[in-house]
Amino acid sequence: MANIKDIAKMAGVSVTTVSRVLNNHPYVSADKKEAVRKAIELCKYQPNINAVHLSIGKTYLIGVVIPFSNHPYFGLLLEGIANEALKSNYKLVLFQTNYEELREAEALAMLKDKQIDALIICSRICEWDMIDEYLSYGRIILCEDVRGENVSATFIDHYKTFTKALTYLYDKGHKKIGYCIGRQTGTNSKQRELAYHDFMEKWDLPFEPAYIFDECLHVEDGDRVVQQVKKMSDPPSALLVTSDQVAAGIVTCCKVNNISIPEELAIMGFDNQPIAKMMNITTLEIPLVEMGKNLFRQAVEKADISQKEIFVELIERDTV
Amino acid sequence: MANIKDIAKMAGVSVTTVSRVLNNHPYVSADKKEAVRKAIELCKYQPNINAVHLSIGKTYLIGVVIPFSNHPYFGLLLEGIANEALKSNYKLVLFQTNYEELREAEALAMLKDKQIDALIICSRICEWDMIDEYLSYGRIILCEDVRGENVSATFIDHYKTFTKALTYLYDKGHKKIGYCIGRQTGTNSKQRELAYHDFMEKWDLPFEPAYIFDECLHVEDGDRVVQQVKKMSDPPSALLVTSDQVAAGIVTCCKVNNISIPEELAIMGFDNQPIAKMMNITTLEIPLVEMGKNLFRQAVEKADISQKEIFVELIERDTV
Repeated sequence: MANIKDIAKMAGVSVTTVSRVLNNHPYVSADKKEAVRKAIELCKYQPNINAVHLSIGKTYLIGVVIPFSNHPYFGLLLEGIANEALKSNYKLVLFQTNYEELREAEALAMLKDKQIDALIICSRICEWDMIDEYLSYGRIILCEDVRGENVSATFIDHYKTFTKALTYLYDKGHKKIGYCIGRQTGTNSKQRELAYHDFMEKWDLPFEPAYIFDECLHVEDGDRVVQQVKKMSDPPSALLVTSDQVAAGIVTCCKVNNISIPEELAIMGFDNQPIAKMMNITTLEIPLVEMGKNLFRQAVEKADISQKEIFVELIERDTV
Repeated sequence: MANIKDIAKMAGVSVTTVSRVLNNHPYVSADKKEAVRKAIELCKYQPNINAVHLSIGKTYLIGVVIPFSNHPYFGLLLEGIANEALKSNYKLVLFQTNYEELREAEALAMLKDKQIDALIICSRICEWDMIDEYLSYGRIILCEDVRGENVSATFIDHYKTFTKALTYLYDKGHKKIGYCIGRQTGTNSKQRELAYHDFMEKWDLPFEPAYIFDECLHVEDGDRVVQQVKKMSDPPSALLVTSDQVAAGIVTCCKVNNISIPEELAIMGFDNQPIAKMMNITTLEIPLVEMGKNLFRQAVEKADISQKEIFVELIERDTV
């Protein structure tokens, strides 16, 4: 039986070109396509795509590490990555990690084993050393601020953004400011925590641990936040909420509990998701779909390391 | 250089066992693991996992077709599939189709080419014939009612469920009932449409095309529905909304527009997502994460065709 090399020889093209035709890859001239098709027909060649990929050392698969599938933040990033992958005829291998380090290690191992061409890590829990170790094995793209490291990334400066939001609340007269965060252990969360501490210190504001609400991921977590705030003898006057979904939950529960917004409690969301627009929530716009698209482009482009900072705009509405 | 067969021979195990050790697959005895590891060490063997997969005809990859990544319904299904895949050491290849038939064809082609071990189709736009054609090439699992066909599925009887919801609204005195749907072309939507028409005919209710709202996918689509309802001289008194997100959007916009719920407009959601609980929306509970888990199990199990119907519970709250 003819193999891919025979086809290439017969068609007068390279093995890579044959592989591209078999994968419906763009950028193959009509002439070459036709020649490959004729050769395939003559040989009655039945391609085994895995063997083809093996022979050219390319899988047209890009790995994507996300902690959760069921979260609008990662859903929007994934939407951007997936739409861009569609355009380039790549497929995505999804690693949902639930923030287990072992799962991140598995994704890196697949990159090392060349089962994927590149790996996009949307959020991680592993130490930097582990990423660093695998950088020599393949292309890794990060969605975090790694300036100074030799790795591609599309990122937001969370320290700067958090400081911008805190300054806005402070300028509106707030002194008792708290925040809600997805998880305290992530790289982005650590930047935010640092920004918060520096801000409190700069303006000589008291640090109150009870004003920091952890594990705020979904709309229903807003209810828990409001219940806790209600119990406080000296509650915060403003909350920076790192998810519009959670902010929407807080706003809804405040209405039920007769807490007036922004008079008694000011709320600032994050992302500018549709729910923020609909409920008139003041928020910081993060173009997640665009960020996802850029992450994918960085994963497949031949260029060197690139780092792209995404700037965040403050959208003034009714909740601050 | 030693290959996988040499390792197997040296360790006194099968090629499949070597592959399992290389893939960190469970169900390999400690003795065999140790023997394989020793053999690998002795040979200084560098596995190319793609070659290993090729030799055993298994990739440990399961394809998942979803129309959108950024949609809570599919996010929850994917969460269930991904969590179950984690447990069994499988990875997922994501096909986000945006409901383009060509993308579905690509996923089926990957199954045929054995780049994935099985394909889970969460929602499709292609004709049944296309599925039927590929069933001989590999395992396909559907998330729709395909009773009578020789294919595995985890499904909801949407005809029965829609009729149940319509009956509930009718018994509450509603005669002018409309519905909001994601897209009218899908297989599930057609069942719902049929149930609606049959119900209208059975109770001799007038059919009003303006009471059917298409393209209702996200929370912000609720605003469009409310704007249209407001313009009607004879608006519906109740809406069946096939997404809790859209239902939440409608409820929020009705408040802004001083339309009282349920007095002027009754709203029944679908899925029982956290937002429905938080906003006290009457809804139909669909256990999407559980459905996702079952879809994955059907994709990897060795058993014959299985079809599992999921039953839907009506959750009475304040919006009907």
